[in-house]
Amino acid sequence: MDPADSRAPELQTLTPGLYDVVQFAVLGAGFALLAYLLYSWVSRDEVSARYRPSAYAAICLAAVATVAYAVLYSDVDSGFRLTDGVYVPTEEARTTEGTRYIDWSVTVPLLTVELLAVCSLSGARARRVRAGAMASAFLMIVTGYVGAQVVGEGRDTAALVVWGLISTAFFAYLYVALIAAVRASLPTMGTEAATSLRNATIVLLSSFGIYPLVYAVPVFADVTPAWYTAMQVAYSVADVIAKIGFGVLVHKVAKLRTAEDVAAGVDTHPEPVWSSNVPKSEGVQPEVRRIAER
Amino acid sequence: MDPADSRAPELQTLTPGLYDVVQFAVLGAGFALLAYLLYSWVSRDEVSARYRPSAYAAICLAAVATVAYAVLYSDVDSGFRLTDGVYVPTEEARTTEGTRYIDWSVTVPLLTVELLAVCSLSGARARRVRAGAMASAFLMIVTGYVGAQVVGEGRDTAALVVWGLISTAFFAYLYVALIAAVRASLPTMGTEAATSLRNATIVLLSSFGIYPLVYAVPVFADVTPAWYTAMQVAYSVADVIAKIGFGVLVHKVAKLRTAEDVAAGVDTHPEPVWSSNVPKSEGVQPEVRRIAER
Amino acid sequence: MDPADSRAPELQTLTPGLYDVVQFAVLGAGFALLAYLLYSWVSRDEVSARYRPSAYAAICLAAVATVAYAVLYSDVDSGFRLTDGVYVPTEEARTTEGTRYIDWSVTVPLLTVELLAVCSLSGARARRVRAGAMASAFLMIVTGYVGAQVVGEGRDTAALVVWGLISTAFFAYLYVALIAAVRASLPTMGTEAATSLRNATIVLLSSFGIYPLVYAVPVFADVTPAWYTAMQVAYSVADVIAKIGFGVLVHKVAKLRTAEDVAAGVDTHPEPVWSSNVPKSEGVQPEVRRIAER
Amino acid sequence: MDPADSRAPELQTLTPGLYDVVQFAVLGAGFALLAYLLYSWVSRDEVSARYRPSAYAAICLAAVATVAYAVLYSDVDSGFRLTDGVYVPTEEARTTEGTRYIDWSVTVPLLTVELLAVCSLSGARARRVRAGAMASAFLMIVTGYVGAQVVGEGRDTAALVVWGLISTAFFAYLYVALIAAVRASLPTMGTEAATSLRNATIVLLSSFGIYPLVYAVPVFADVTPAWYTAMQVAYSVADVIAKIGFGVLVHKVAKLRTAEDVAAGVDTHPEPVWSSNVPKSEGVQPEVRRIAER
Amino acid sequence: MDPADSRAPELQTLTPGLYDVVQFAVLGAGFALLAYLLYSWVSRDEVSARYRPSAYAAICLAAVATVAYAVLYSDVDSGFRLTDGVYVPTEEARTTEGTRYIDWSVTVPLLTVELLAVCSLSGARARRVRAGAMASAFLMIVTGYVGAQVVGEGRDTAALVVWGLISTAFFAYLYVALIAAVRASLPTMGTEAATSLRNATIVLLSSFGIYPLVYAVPVFADVTPAWYTAMQVAYSVADVIAKIGFGVLVHKVAKLRTAEDVAAGVDTHPEPVWSSNVPKSEGVQPEVRRIAER
Repeated sequence: MDPADSRAPELQTLTPGLYDVVQFAVLGAGFALLAYLLYSWVSRDEVSARYRPSAYAAICLAAVATVAYAVLYSDVDSGFRLTDGVYVPTEEARTTEGTRYIDWSVTVPLLTVELLAVCSLSGARARRVRAGAMASAFLMIVTGYVGAQVVGEGRDTAALVVWGLISTAFFAYLYVALIAAVRASLPTMGTEAATSLRNATIVLLSSFGIYPLVYAVPVFADVTPAWYTAMQVAYSVADVIAKIGFGVLVHKVAKLRTAEDVAAGVDTHPEPVWSSNVPKSEGVQPEVRRIAER
Repeated sequence: MDPADSRAPELQTLTPGLYDVVQFAVLGAGFALLAYLLYSWVSRDEVSARYRPSAYAAICLAAVATVAYAVLYSDVDSGFRLTDGVYVPTEEARTTEGTRYIDWSVTVPLLTVELLAVCSLSGARARRVRAGAMASAFLMIVTGYVGAQVVGEGRDTAALVVWGLISTAFFAYLYVALIAAVRASLPTMGTEAATSLRNATIVLLSSFGIYPLVYAVPVFADVTPAWYTAMQVAYSVADVIAKIGFGVLVHKVAKLRTAEDVAAGVDTHPEPVWSSNVPKSEGVQPEVRRIAER
Repeated sequence: MDPADSRAPELQTLTPGLYDVVQFAVLGAGFALLAYLLYSWVSRDEVSARYRPSAYAAICLAAVATVAYAVLYSDVDSGFRLTDGVYVPTEEARTTEGTRYIDWSVTVPLLTVELLAVCSLSGARARRVRAGAMASAFLMIVTGYVGAQVVGEGRDTAALVVWGLISTAFFAYLYVALIAAVRASLPTMGTEAATSLRNATIVLLSSFGIYPLVYAVPVFADVTPAWYTAMQVAYSVADVIAKIGFGVLVHKVAKLRTAEDVAAGVDTHPEPVWSSNVPKSEGVQPEVRRIAER
Repeated sequence: MDPADSRAPELQTLTPGLYDVVQFAVLGAGFALLAYLLYSWVSRDEVSARYRPSAYAAICLAAVATVAYAVLYSDVDSGFRLTDGVYVPTEEARTTEGTRYIDWSVTVPLLTVELLAVCSLSGARARRVRAGAMASAFLMIVTGYVGAQVVGEGRDTAALVVWGLISTAFFAYLYVALIAAVRASLPTMGTEAATSLRNATIVLLSSFGIYPLVYAVPVFADVTPAWYTAMQVAYSVADVIAKIGFGVLVHKVAKLRTAEDVAAGVDTHPEPVWSSNVPKSEGVQPEVRRIAER
Repeated sequence: MDPADSRAPELQTLTPGLYDVVQFAVLGAGFALLAYLLYSWVSRDEVSARYRPSAYAAICLAAVATVAYAVLYSDVDSGFRLTDGVYVPTEEARTTEGTRYIDWSVTVPLLTVELLAVCSLSGARARRVRAGAMASAFLMIVTGYVGAQVVGEGRDTAALVVWGLISTAFFAYLYVALIAAVRASLPTMGTEAATSLRNATIVLLSSFGIYPLVYAVPVFADVTPAWYTAMQVAYSVADVIAKIGFGVLVHKVAKLRTAEDVAAGVDTHPEPVWSSNVPKSEGVQPEVRRIAER
């Protein structure tokens, strides 16, 4: 395979400086996601059973993203060989974009679960909105993958445009569905929780906007080594913001709502809730079965 | 080994586009199973001790399937080499079907455990039905493996048919046994739990139907690269539905039945049960040993 | 190394069909042991502190066996290369038997701990019997390894016989010690627990009988590819039965005895005990320290 | 690539003795960090929910540092080949410094979280100081990476100086912010906790001083094999002190403050707090929901 | 590198029989340490918060030792190639001794923590003795590494003697400090705990004596393949005894002292303590915060 013939964004010969930037982006984002995986794992009991599906989604998507970045790091490591002072791409470099789509096909649907689980929709309506959001998130990614990777190895501009537009349709549906669910939920919680929920939604939806921009680059311009580097940095930064920045805010919403429920006497939670060193609620254990009931 | 001589479905030369689809199917299903492994792990205490064998089965099978897909991914990655713009199979590609059977020989018996543990059979009858279901599930897979892999490397049509029919006999027994157990259990639980249990059974048994269809392809037609790709996609999708889709529904049954038991005062559970943001039961701790009993 | 010169059982040229059977045996047993590792891990709190050393032994031996099978799988994978349609052994194939002995030198002593921990011996006598059983189990394996692997690479029939007899002496001691301990314990527990304990003992001791039979094959006959395949299948099946089948029965004994202790008021256990959907005891929490004691 | 041409500190030909020292430094620090990761993981419930964000930060940064040292060890192992009695660097040796910066870009911001979480700032002020400290810590590392790795492969003295000074500015901001936060917090806690907090701060900030010294070496002198070795030792020792030495002291502060809160009746904690075999507080469980509230 | 020229103990050509013994020693000890790691992990809550630092040290050192043996196994596996019926050493074999020292530099200091945490020294004195023991243990190993590995690749007899003597001085200090601490503690606990503590100390200190004996071999004699094999076996056996044998005894001390504290009413522990099937104390939960305190 002669990389010079190819417009495929993954097959660029990089200077050591650019290669080091790509490595920083991929390994650094991978380390951050590993840290977030552990954080979401150990902090999951800080929220009550009611909001815990949100914590479960965070754990699952953090694990998938961490493993995906380990695969990406291995691809970047073995996908470029230092020859005559520059990094020349090998076969392994072909997957440094595709692996991201495969990651997103699982993690983006889970991000919608994470958000909806701290909203106030309930019962059949919650299940319906969740199923719609998961499906449209999945289809958004799969159709993007078809355009960017499968048809003509991502070098077919017409396919990029057509599949990009199909993907955008699912993107639009997702925006509308999530914003409606958040809007309906904001009045049902306290001010601090509502502010964090609004911020989390803004962080998620605005970081989602980065992906189509990067997707569109090969449509309008030849991909150069600098663009390839920028693409890896942009995707890595977007992943960190959309998963970790968003996730920390959602966890705060779940903690504050747990404290609200305990303080209102409608739920129990076996330990106190603190947020930024401020006590939000005391611990309350469930009742003990009476001996007489035996 | 000259792959052109071979009708073995695993040894097909793939275009980059088909290869990318196979990679999406295998790595994507692996990521989904990893997410489900973590979900089943962290959510296991949401169900009471009574139904927890179901959660244990889910954890165990999710772990095996995740590791099996990691092996499959490694086989797909090293089993095809990009040469002159196409992916040519190597020795490692031979196991991209066999590894699936080995996975199923452990995970399919565990799927029957997962289902039966939220049914209402009890004592000796429960043990008898469980043993029969596990044994027939195991034999169904092993006999399929003999036909598809061991005899004539899966290229012997007569062996495919004979062993396929033997496998189908176990398949039939399994259907009958599981449906009888579910039918006997539905009236013993509330409507919502019963609906989910019925749906879970339908999901499991209908997704089981995909496997013999894919198995039968080499009997009726030459396997082409497109068929190989379709086979990998079909198996991956069926695995995701039969393990994750089914498992999420069974977990819901277990949670709802836990809540029913606590609300009826016949069991304790140390935290409230919520389902889709709706409270189903409060937490009730076991009684405390009286001092006087010392 | 010319494998044709060698009677060493590990260096056989295999047809693809036989190779696939070996792979099924090794990878399938490895998957089953991984599943059992997770089961023993997550179910360990179902038994009271009294019997928990049994669960600890199960976890430890399941982990060692799982890792040993991962090593075995890697040896089988890289130990045979497909050349001209057959699998020719390489250097790595030499350890596909030795690794099993190394595994057993740790796991068989732990199996005796697992069994004795649900018996009723106590104090100094329990420690004495346990130490004797662990030591004889360890020596049984080590002396077998000397005969099968170290002296003359397992091709020296005299060494096989002599070390096999020494190993058998420890084997005999182990049988006597374990049966005596179980016999003394059966009358101290309820019928259901006693039946399971008797079954577990039979499963363990009869599966132990498979190993010397396989060991003895090179004494009486030349090892052929079919025998090598049968050996790998027999060892794998025996490991699954002696570890998983046995372990599930022992876990049941531990659970039933926990329930007996709680029902008799001589112990506490923080959650109800269920077995095959039948309630065996309710949860009882330990007493709470009185305020006045401060 | 001809290492003899290069002033890049990572490409030095090492004697076996120097190589063994580098290996001791990297593998030994990696083992120590693995031990600390497990310690921070299992000891996290020794502190109350109030101070637990400190324990979470410790777990996350310990995991990232452990993985980073595993990568470093692999680079040192495969990055030098023994040829004619000396260790000659290969391509992999190029990243034995860069990987450290990528590690630090995640772990240094988390170290500031760990420290601030046992201080007494609260609410909006706590969030503001934390965000500023994390941002300046991150930028301090990233700008150092640009000078040491990206521009001219770390051989451009002017870039080293300029980016070093920019990095130092963030370094200065961090010192001021952390010292102010600690100073404000010392009077709010008991003497023993305050002493440990002061010691932890001194350990962290003084060990931070080692890094710029090592960074500055290529500015003033040619890097020799001995300097390369000293650099690896210095970085490894500094990492152990700044992460483990610091972390053990912070954990002690968190435990002592937990005990103070419980003894003062303002918080609950479900187990006694002991420090160096001295009891600091008894366990106090949260209240139990009254039956009447149902 | 011509191994025939070398007196370095790591570079010996081994017969298959000797190689198999080395593999048994290294892989078997690694399996035993993996089992012990899991045991120390799952059994850590059997001891009260007072003695838990002992369990933490056990977990940390078991993990480091397990990983070190995985590295050793990989070095033994790839460090010898079967050529003409014998195992010829490669570059990787050079680290089959050095990796042990790196392991010990972390694990031996932790062994002293494990022992001291079940003694009765408290407060400043406990911290002083612990710091001294950890420092001298670390320096004992590091100085040994300098003599055995760094100076002249361990072939310089004068360096072996001088550094061996320096190491011995730290060894002597350690003995005196640990024995004094144990002696002072024995009268403060019950007979059974004291006996186990005395046994644990004897096991630890006598197994420590094996290491200098093996270290001294190259001083007095040429190292032969048989000596190399004996060295690997001796180190592996000593590691198993000093870590696992010792650790099991210390865990027993911690459990018995936990039971003593609970029975004496000076501590709480949420579950009963059993030792060898004998009940030692009942479970006692911490007091519950009174509603009136709100």
